[in-house]
Order: sequence, then structure tokens, then C-alpha cells
Amino acid sequence: MRKIHIGLLGCGTVGTGVARILLDRRALIADRVGAELVLKHIADIDMDRAAGLPLASGVMVPDAWPVVEDPQIDIVVEMIGGQGIAKDLILRAIETGKHVVTANKALLAVQGNPLFAAAADKGVDLAYEASCGGCMPIIKTLRESLVGNRIHAMTGILNGTCNFILTRIFEDGSPFADALAQAQAQGYAEADPTLDIEGIDTAHKLAILTALAYGMTIDFESIYTEGISRITPLDVQFAQQFGYKIKLLAIGKEKDGRVESRVHPTMIPADNLLSHVDGSLNALKISGDAVGDMVLNGHGAGMMPTASAVVGDIVDIARNMMAGLPGRVPLLSYQPGKIRTLPVMPMEEIETRYYFRFCVKDRPGVLAKIAGILGRYGISLRSVHQKGRQVKGTVPIVMFTHMALERDVVSALSEISALDEVVASPMLIRIEDDRED
Amino acid sequence: MRKIHIGLLGCGTVGTGVARILLDRRALIADRVGAELVLKHIADIDMDRAAGLPLASGVMVPDAWPVVEDPQIDIVVEMIGGQGIAKDLILRAIETGKHVVTANKALLAVQGNPLFAAAADKGVDLAYEASCGGCMPIIKTLRESLVGNRIHAMTGILNGTCNFILTRIFEDGSPFADALAQAQAQGYAEADPTLDIEGIDTAHKLAILTALAYGMTIDFESIYTEGISRITPLDVQFAQQFGYKIKLLAIGKEKDGRVESRVHPTMIPADNLLSHVDGSLNALKISGDAVGDMVLNGHGAGMMPTASAVVGDIVDIARNMMAGLPGRVPLLSYQPGKIRTLPVMPMEEIETRYYFRFCVKDRPGVLAKIAGILGRYGISLRSVHQKGRQVKGTVPIVMFTHMALERDVVSALSEISALDEVVASPMLIRIEDDRED
Repeated sequence: MRKIHIGLLGCGTVGTGVARILLDRRALIADRVGAELVLKHIADIDMDRAAGLPLASGVMVPDAWPVVEDPQIDIVVEMIGGQGIAKDLILRAIETGKHVVTANKALLAVQGNPLFAAAADKGVDLAYEASCGGCMPIIKTLRESLVGNRIHAMTGILNGTCNFILTRIFEDGSPFADALAQAQAQGYAEADPTLDIEGIDTAHKLAILTALAYGMTIDFESIYTEGISRITPLDVQFAQQFGYKIKLLAIGKEKDGRVESRVHPTMIPADNLLSHVDGSLNALKISGDAVGDMVLNGHGAGMMPTASAVVGDIVDIARNMMAGLPGRVPLLSYQPGKIRTLPVMPMEEIETRYYFRFCVKDRPGVLAKIAGILGRYGISLRSVHQKGRQVKGTVPIVMFTHMALERDVVSALSEISALDEVVASPMLIRIEDDRED
Repeated sequence: MRKIHIGLLGCGTVGTGVARILLDRRALIADRVGAELVLKHIADIDMDRAAGLPLASGVMVPDAWPVVEDPQIDIVVEMIGGQGIAKDLILRAIETGKHVVTANKALLAVQGNPLFAAAADKGVDLAYEASCGGCMPIIKTLRESLVGNRIHAMTGILNGTCNFILTRIFEDGSPFADALAQAQAQGYAEADPTLDIEGIDTAHKLAILTALAYGMTIDFESIYTEGISRITPLDVQFAQQFGYKIKLLAIGKEKDGRVESRVHPTMIPADNLLSHVDGSLNALKISGDAVGDMVLNGHGAGMMPTASAVVGDIVDIARNMMAGLPGRVPLLSYQPGKIRTLPVMPMEEIETRYYFRFCVKDRPGVLAKIAGILGRYGISLRSVHQKGRQVKGTVPIVMFTHMALERDVVSALSEISALDEVVASPMLIRIEDDRED
């Protein structure tokens, strides 16, 4: 049986999971693939990290470079992360004609265009299913299953840390800081949670997905990104009262050659399937002209789910190799010459529905003042609610709008903030609701 | 640009959808594939069926056989359905070295083994993503993405007609017959709904999925199949009161070389993601040792969603052809020599939880009698409820069990049925609930 040799760079959580599947499921995978996948080397500076794995002597090595240079290695699996050494190793692996598998969304989102170009030039595969949505076959679905569709929109919950925190706020009424502390205690959030809670990790994934869906170059810089740290239990309760849940959504839409690409806390109807995706689970809803709506749901992170996706990529490449055909599926879904640079709409040109919460002094006339300003900017209200009891002389006013232009909303809210009666800065949460007004 | 020629057999609903995508999305698909997919012929006895399609003269033909014999045709797309002529055409297409795409689950479930063997012998692809779950990439996920997983279990809502009917019973309290009539009026059910409501269509799909997941020959005959026509609004209400929803589930599990393969109405916890899959939507939950639980959700039928899956298959084959490599992914997930014949567990050996509803005469002691019989068969009760008012001297008794053996349950219920106090035959609904007792 043909042997295909794998070099694994980095033996952290996911790397260890990959090694474990390749070792434990060697026979199962061979039965499915018709080739034997041999884990020739694992490289990690900390050689103790592989202590729990049943490795033959010499498999574990401290330096990644000799692995990348080893002519017997067919596939390099980069599990180091970050945008430094990982990039250099991937580039060298490509130069030496090796196929590469990575889960490194930050690297692909920020520096992916030259990496994919290098792989296409060299005629090698660069696979990255595990970069978006952990175990879910998002990349494969977009590149292969939906190939006959024009994709209209994608909305996704792509960060388990944020979804865990929002679920805790929803279910326990915990303030954000407490929910974050709980996420950290349970291992769902890093000590420095910035990348997750500020939406940056979600934006990394969205940059890759919009490229795939719309045949455009990867454009991370243009994504509007807003995290969840401002979300309060009060907003979550109001959302619930009016039939919504709040999720951190990645939103990617294409219309007439322009792309919306944004990440922010979003209210979605409680009966939307994404509303039921709680805890650390992830999901992506894809809307195409033929398929209608399709939802993929599963573990977006974690050792074994992510490793499962990496092994799926390794096997895809192994099958291509046995056919003598790298690049069977174009790396970014479209043939390289067909990838366009599409403009991402500036946030102020976005039209959507809004939830506002104002904290105002409980005086007559304040509602009329606020409504007057919104009216002058052409922002039409769907409903207005003066809810809850006075706290220290202030009351919350909640408003839901019809479709409005972000630019107008920003201007109106800035004027409203300046009113004497308005205490603290207004809360704004965008709404994705396909149901008619 | 290379041209790949397609012959479409059957221009019904899905066939028309396939033609429409190939015609309307010709440029988009070429951008993604790097080859032009040319719809050379559509064959249908009723040549008017293609009236709405912008076809060049000579594309539409009345007879499928010349299309299958045409040496220029690369891929035959069988959209005729049924197990007669469709099978003969597919076999002949394989004999002449053509690749085949089909959505014909009944044919594959019942006569698939020799068809797949013929295709493997001839070295051609036989693709069937659209046979299970419409637009959802179930086959691709099982064969490719989850290749590093041992699959433990699959539970699926795979028939939109049944799910629509159960949703109407749940939401409106309609009796089964009314809900079915509504499904027929809205085009979700055929005039003869037997295949759908008796669970046969679901079992066809399950036969294919268990083969893929467990590396076994297709075994439709051994599947226990029970439809939804006995489900009453009363059972649906009781289910809801105790935190369940009733869905027609396909259940496929593997343990120690034996397979559970069964289709029946099933209570699932209301917070299970499948519980939120309502109306005509389908979903499949796959549990693997590495991925944990993953759910795919989308339109399981309908013209364009199904056509989208068919076009995905056509493109997969086109990509293989350009690589000169058919059979890149083994047809039934495992290498042909590695496919086993696995025993399907007889239904009486299944262990699961149960809901019983007895209709009894309102006399003292009847509950004790029933509980006594269950106890003798070792069936342990989780809870017992005497609910609702007397109707004509009878009352319903509802019971939920712990894990019990189907054989014992059948025997106990037969004894209970024979009691004087028990009116009408008892209702039994199996429960899938992973939560601990």
C-alpha cells in the first residue's frame, strides 16, 4: 500500500489531536483512503509535549526546519499558529513542493493572498478547513457542494468564546465581566481574551469566507469589527422580551459587485436556527440562490473537532496525490485568474434595522426630542418602549427601527447623546431579521 | 477551455432545476471549475417539459437511450426516478464508461450494491449527494470531511413531508389526517403519500448513510420502519408537557460491529437542535469520536436545493475528469475491498427509553396492574402521570421509562392490552435522550 509521509509542525492542543487521530485511526483511514498516512515527524521545541503519544524513536524532533526540508515528507501540517515563523515555514514548504495543511486563520486572513499565490504557482495544495468553524465542513461546502450557487449571504456564529459568554449573560443574567471570568475558568477563553471578545478572530474567519463565497481577494482590513464587551444583561433581557437573541455574528453579503463584510453583536429572531446555537457551539448559515438557506452547526474549536478537520484536509490531499493531481479544487474556490478585488462597503453605507437603548432623565418631553431627531435623519421607528423602573432618576427608553442607513444613525445618535436629558452614551445593536416589517 | 458534456435524463422538477443551473450559471461554474459544462442533451418523453428552458435546437430529445450511447457524453445525470428504466439506463451508462449522477435513493437503497460494484469495476464515478438530504452535503461530509472519525451515531430528520405534518400537529393541534391534507394542498406531500408517511423514504436514505458511515454493504431490508400516521395531537401535547418534541427520526448507530438502523417517530428533548428543525426542513446530526456532534440543516427536497446538490456532484466529477482520475473518493466511503456485511440488530434487541400512553377505564387499581406487569418484565419507570379529564369513562395514563429492552416492552404491552380496563391499543413512542436519567 502506498505510503504518504506527514510532517507535523507544532504539538500543542490541536497538533496533539491530529497526531492522535493519525496514530489511533491509521487502519480506519487506510481503509477509506487506500493509502497509509505515516506520521514521519513531529516538530516542537518542547519535546515533552508528545510524551503521551506512542511514537517510535526519532519521530519527535525539536526543530521544524529539517522537517520542511525533508524530501520524503509529502504534506506539512502547520499547527504552530501566529504570523511569524509559521508563515516562513509554510512558504518554504511550498517552495520545496510540499502540500500544506493549516488551521491558522489569522495568518490566512492577514497574509493569505501571497501564500495562496505561491501555492498556486508551485502547483501544491494549501488546505485550511480547520481555520473556519473547527469541525464543520464550511470550506468544503463553499468550494465544492455549493459550486452551482450564487451565494447571497452568510451569517455565522464563528467564535465559541463569545457565544459561551453571551449564553451565560442570557441564561444567568450575569454581567459581561462575570461571564468572561466564567469562560476563562472553564477554559473557553484565553487569559488575554482580546482576539475573541473584540471580534477579531471572527473577522479573520469572515475574511476567508467572503473570499471563497464571492471569488474575491482576502480582505481582512476592510471588515468592520465590533466586539461584545459592551453588551449588558439589560440589553439581553430587552432582546428577549421582543423576541430576539443577541449573538456575535459574522455577516458577509454580496450585491451588485459590492460586499458587506462585518462583525458585530446582532439581534436575531428567537426562532432563527442560529438563536438555538448556544454555549461554545458555532454555526454558519449560508444562503444561495439554489439551495436557499443551509446551516452547518458543530464544535468550532477544541482539540479533537479541529483535529478532525485537519485530518479531513490531509486525506483530501492524499487522494489528490494518488491521482497525481494537486490543485484539483482551486485554493480559493475560483480559478486563480477569476478572483476579483471586490469593494467592501464602508460601514456608514450599510442599511439595516437597529435597536437603541437610551438612558434618560425621567422628564416630560424627552421621548419627543429623541424621536424628533431620529425623524429629521429619516430614521423610521417600528416601536418605542419606556420600560422598567426609575433608577436614580433615570429610565431606559428602547426603540426598534425600520431599515435605516448607518450614517444617519451615527449622526442622529451623536445629536441625541448631546441632549441634557440623555445620560451615558446610547446603546446601539444592529438587527438581522429577514421577516417583513 | 475544456468542455465536459452532460446528458440529462428526465426533465421533471429536479431535472429542470439542474438544467436551469447549468444554463444560468454556466460562466460562474466555469470560473470555479476551469472547464465548461455543456448540457448536450436533455431526454424526456414529454418534450414540452423543457419549454421554459432556453435550449438550442436539438438539445431536447424524446429518448434516453441514444443519450446514454452517445460517445461524446461524459456524464449522465439520471433524474427519472423509480427502480425500472432508471436502473437499466444507469447500468448501460456505466458500461459505456460514463460517469453517473443520480438522486434516486429508492434505487440505491434497494439495488445499490450491484450498481456501485459495476461502477467500481468500470472505474467510473457514481455520485449521489442529492439522494440524501437534498442540498445538505451529507455524503461529502461523511466520505471526506469526517474521514478521520469513527462515527458512533447519526440521527436525522430526512423527510420534509413528515416533518411538515408533525410541525402542523404540534403548532395547530391538528389531527394527522388534517395535517396531511394541508401538506398535500401546499405541495409538500404527494397524492399517494405512503412512501413518505410510512417512513420508507427515510429508510431509503438511512440505508445509504449507514453504509457510508460504517463501511458496510447497503442493507435496506433490515431497517425497522414505522411511520407517523398513528401520532395524535394528544401525544404531541404530552411530549411537549414533559419537555419533548416528536420527530420522525432515522437512527443509525454502530457498536462492537453491530448496527442499529431504524426509522420511527421519536421523542427528543426540546433543547436538542433537531427539535428546532421545523416545517419541511431536514437535518442530520452526526456524532463522531473526534468531531463530537455536528448538525447539517437545510432544505431536504424541492427543485433548486436538490438541483444544487446534483450540480455539486457534476462538478466533483468534472474536476476528477480533468485530473484524469475517476474514483478519487471511494464510492461508498471505504475502499471496495474493505466494505463488510455488518449485522443489523433485530428491533427486539434494541434498548432505549419509552413513552407509553394507555387509555383506561377510570377504576381504582388499574395503574397498579399496569405497573405490575411492567415490573415483571423488568421495565423501570421514570415517571407516571394520570392526566386530563375522563372522556366517556376513560382516562389516559402516561408513563416514561428508563432504558428498557424492546422485546420486554412488546411483551408487556401485549399483556397490558389484554387487561379488561385497557381500552384501545397502547401508544408507544421511543425516546432518544442522551441526558442522564
